[in-house]
Amino acid sequence: MPRTQRVDAQANRGRILDVAEEVFGASGAAASTEEVARRAGVGIATVFRHFPTKAALLQAVLVRRYDRLREQAEALLGAEDPGSAFRDFFRHLVADAATKIAIGEALLHAGGDSDGEAAQASNGLRRAVGALLQRAQRAGAVRDDVELPEVYALLVAMSRLATDAEVTARALEIVFDGLAEVTGGGRRTVRP
Amino acid sequence: MPRTQRVDAQANRGRILDVAEEVFGASGAAASTEEVARRAGVGIATVFRHFPTKAALLQAVLVRRYDRLREQAEALLGAEDPGSAFRDFFRHLVADAATKIAIGEALLHAGGDSDGEAAQASNGLRRAVGALLQRAQRAGAVRDDVELPEVYALLVAMSRLATDAEVTARALEIVFDGLAEVTGGGRRTVRP
Repeated sequence: MPRTQRVDAQANRGRILDVAEEVFGASGAAASTEEVARRAGVGIATVFRHFPTKAALLQAVLVRRYDRLREQAEALLGAEDPGSAFRDFFRHLVADAATKIAIGEALLHAGGDSDGEAAQASNGLRRAVGALLQRAQRAGAVRDDVELPEVYALLVAMSRLATDAEVTARALEIVFDGLAEVTGGGRRTVRP
Repeated sequence: MPRTQRVDAQANRGRILDVAEEVFGASGAAASTEEVARRAGVGIATVFRHFPTKAALLQAVLVRRYDRLREQAEALLGAEDPGSAFRDFFRHLVADAATKIAIGEALLHAGGDSDGEAAQASNGLRRAVGALLQRAQRAGAVRDDVELPEVYALLVAMSRLATDAEVTARALEIVFDGLAEVTGGGRRTVRP
């Protein structure tokens, strides 16, 4: 393939993924590959040349999304205030979760599974969150008797909450207080 | 209907509900009314006399369940340690949630909805949790700048968590710490 055609193909692939993320993120399993093609301004054959099945397209959308979030987390590892960086990214993931869940459901509906590449990319994100957590703990901003499993469990739990943003924000403050290193007494012990 | 027949009918109804709660709580939408009849030792006609549709049966199971949990919460309003009572009941609801979710999914699958009677019973439970929360706040065991919406949001979030019991228990301790009234500084403000 000549270079310009390769560049075009790459641009098409990127645009298809952008549109697919938006369309499936908003409508989940109800969205169609045809709609993605139309809104991306390409023929349906072009979509299927890049992604032979709807499941393959959705898998690629999820992988790219996890990779992007992981990169964002990694960029925050250099932030000045490790406690704020950890909390801000936690909030960001929770706010972002509804579209992620919609895409994941569309993938299941299309007969795909969330194992394989998407699971690997998801683990990469989890590790990056773990690094943010450790950095916040070393800075004394997060208590050091908690570990990633319970923190990620809270993140997943809060991500699935479909309530209004204000209530979610308040619930998150409670969680962050529970995670905070405090000087006063009366603290419970998460990991003795 | 003569009195003994009425008593028998009432006993059958109770047994059908007991079995249905167990069967649908374990298997969700995959369970059948036939299995309920068989395990309750009654004919399928008897089940349908009490509950004309599968949805009606599941609705009745959910209502009874919410009512029972509400009564348990109300009984705890007399507990000596209001903080422990609140946390114990919170834990109890989270531990109990998987079967509740399975029954709710079976109800949706059977074409029923969770409005109506079940929603009313669910609101009764929510109010009882609110009373436990207020009592814990008055006793100084739970911070008084939180209100029921964010606390219930946390309860719902933790209830949907399908992770192992130990991780859930640790995540709950973090939440309880976030809810605790603490004397030290550095506390965030949930409701200014």
